[in-house]
Amino acid sequence: MSTRGEFGFIDFIKGHFPCPDGICGIGDDCAVIPSSEGDLLFSTDLLMEGVHFLRDESSPEDVGWKAAAVNISDIAAMGGIPVATFLSIALPEDAQGEWAERFMEGYAQISRRYDVPLLGGDTTSSLRDIAVNVGILGRCQAGKCLMRSSAKVGETIYVTGPLGDSAGGLQVILKGLERSEEMNVLVNRHKRPVPRVREGQMLMESGKVSAMMDISDGIASDLRHIMKASGVGAVVALDRLPCSPELLSVCDGQGWDRYGLQTSGGEDFELLFTGPAGLEYELDFHIYPIGETVCGNALTWTVNEEPVDFDYNGYTHF
Amino acid sequence: MSTRGEFGFIDFIKGHFPCPDGICGIGDDCAVIPSSEGDLLFSTDLLMEGVHFLRDESSPEDVGWKAAAVNISDIAAMGGIPVATFLSIALPEDAQGEWAERFMEGYAQISRRYDVPLLGGDTTSSLRDIAVNVGILGRCQAGKCLMRSSAKVGETIYVTGPLGDSAGGLQVILKGLERSEEMNVLVNRHKRPVPRVREGQMLMESGKVSAMMDISDGIASDLRHIMKASGVGAVVALDRLPCSPELLSVCDGQGWDRYGLQTSGGEDFELLFTGPAGLEYELDFHIYPIGETVCGNALTWTVNEEPVDFDYNGYTHF
Repeated sequence: MSTRGEFGFIDFIKGHFPCPDGICGIGDDCAVIPSSEGDLLFSTDLLMEGVHFLRDESSPEDVGWKAAAVNISDIAAMGGIPVATFLSIALPEDAQGEWAERFMEGYAQISRRYDVPLLGGDTTSSLRDIAVNVGILGRCQAGKCLMRSSAKVGETIYVTGPLGDSAGGLQVILKGLERSEEMNVLVNRHKRPVPRVREGQMLMESGKVSAMMDISDGIASDLRHIMKASGVGAVVALDRLPCSPELLSVCDGQGWDRYGLQTSGGEDFELLFTGPAGLEYELDFHIYPIGETVCGNALTWTVNEEPVDFDYNGYTHF
Repeated sequence: MSTRGEFGFIDFIKGHFPCPDGICGIGDDCAVIPSSEGDLLFSTDLLMEGVHFLRDESSPEDVGWKAAAVNISDIAAMGGIPVATFLSIALPEDAQGEWAERFMEGYAQISRRYDVPLLGGDTTSSLRDIAVNVGILGRCQAGKCLMRSSAKVGETIYVTGPLGDSAGGLQVILKGLERSEEMNVLVNRHKRPVPRVREGQMLMESGKVSAMMDISDGIASDLRHIMKASGVGAVVALDRLPCSPELLSVCDGQGWDRYGLQTSGGEDFELLFTGPAGLEYELDFHIYPIGETVCGNALTWTVNEEPVDFDYNGYTHF
C-alpha cells in the first residue's frame, strides 16, 4: 500500500467512503447536504505551524484572520452564505497566553466583518506545534450551489481578481527582503486574504455560471480540479491573467517569474469559474476572462494567442 | 492578559463571540442551530500526537476509531442522530503511507457501524506531529436536544454504564504492565470506546431527562459542567458508581485507587444525565443512579451515605 501523495490519499479515502445518494461529499470546496430549507454546506481546513505559518513571520492576529478567511472562502466558492464557524486549536505551552488571545482577536475581526458567529470548537494542549482547524457551516438555495463538476466545453474561464499577489508576498517574507510600499501590499494580501463572499453569491444568483471554486493552490492546480471533475480541457492565456500594479512592479524590480507566481503560488482566494462569453459586461463587479474550456483533458498555456511551453503544477501538500 | 487555563481561555472566547439569539453555541457538547427540519447539531474535536495518543502505544486503526468515536459521542450526548463527519488530518512524512491508510481503516470501521458517512475534510503535511480533527454534523427533533443547563434541584443523577475502565486501561498502557485478560478488556475500552448513540436517543425520546452530557474528562469534572450550567449542587455516592468486574479485579491486584479512576479518569464516553427518581425501572436498558442534584453549587461525595473528604477534579488540558 502506498498513498502516492496528497491527491492519491484523497482518492484512497473516497474509495473507502462511498458517498450516499443525493449528497455531494469529498472532492469539492464544500460538502453539500440537501435539506428542505436549502442546501447545507460544510467545509474544514487544518493549519499547521511550520507548514502554513511561522510564528516568527506572522502575527497571531494574522493567523487568526487567515484561519477563518480560508474557510469563509470555501463557502464563497459554492455561492453560499456562511452561517457559523467552529474552531479547534491545539496550543503548546508557550502559546497558551498572549499568542492565543491575539489569535482570537484576528479571528474575531474577520468574523465580525462577515457576520459569521463562532459557535463551538475544541481547545487542547500540544507538545510542540500549534494546530488550528476551522470548520464552517453555510447555506445555499436548494440545488443552486456551484460545483467544480459542471463546466462544459466552449465556455469562458474567469477569475474575480488579480492573481499572484499572495505568492509574491510570501516570497518577500521568505527572502527577508527590505520592504517597499508595493511589497507591503503583497505581504498584506498574503496575510489577510479577503474571501469573495458577495461575488460568489452574485455569481450564483446570476444563473449563468456553470462551475466555480476558490483559488487556494494556484490556478495551475485548481483549474485542473475543475477540468478533471467536469471532463474538459482548457486553454489559458498567461498574458490575460489579471495582475496588480504592485506585483508587476516588484516582479520587474526583483526579476521574478510573474507567470509562475500567478499560476502556481496559490492563496489568492479569488474565485475561478466558467460561464458564457461576455459575462464581464453583465455584472456590476469586475471579472476577468482568462481562457476557454475545450475538448480533451489537457491544460494549454498561451501568450499572444500562441501555445507556450510552460509547466507549472501548483502547490501540493505531500 | 492571561488565559488562566483551558476553561479560562474558553471563557475569554465566549466573551469575544456573543452567541446569536436562538442558537446554543460554545459550552455544550454540540452547538445547536435551529432549522425548520429540526435542530442541527455540530461538534468538533482535535487529537494531537503526544497528547491524545502515542504512535508507539496505539495502532493507527485504534486512533482512527477513537477520533470518530469521541465525536459521535458528542451527538449521542445531545440525544441526536449523527449525519456525517468531516476529517482534517496533518501527516508528517513518516506517517503519510501505511499509518494514514491504517488510520482510515479504523475510521471506516466505526463509521460503518454507526452508518455515518465521511463527507469531506482536509489533508496536509505536518513538520513533526500528527494532528487529527473530526467535525460531526447531527440532527435532533426541534427543541428536544438535551443540554447541560436544564438540570433542576432534587433530581437523580444517572450514568449509562461502568466508569473508570478507560482510565484503568490507560494506566495499564502507561505503566507497561504485563497484561492479564482483565487488563486487556480495560485497554480495549480505552482504545475502542463505544458511543452511546441509541441510549442517547432513547433518553431524549423518553421526555424524562432534563440535562445530559457524555463523560470525556471524568465525572468529577464533567458533572461540574452540568452543575455550573444548571445552577445546582450535587451529591454523588462513590460506592454506587457502576464498576466493571475487570476494573475491580485489576484495582484490587494492583492496589489502585478505584474511586480516583472512576471519577477523574475520563474517556468512558458513557452518558451522564439527570431526571426523576426511579427512571432505572422504566427503560429497557441499564442506567445507574449515582446521586442527586441539590441546592447550592458544591459537589459532595459520599460513601455509606456519609460525606467523605475526596477531592478529584478531573482532567483539564492546560
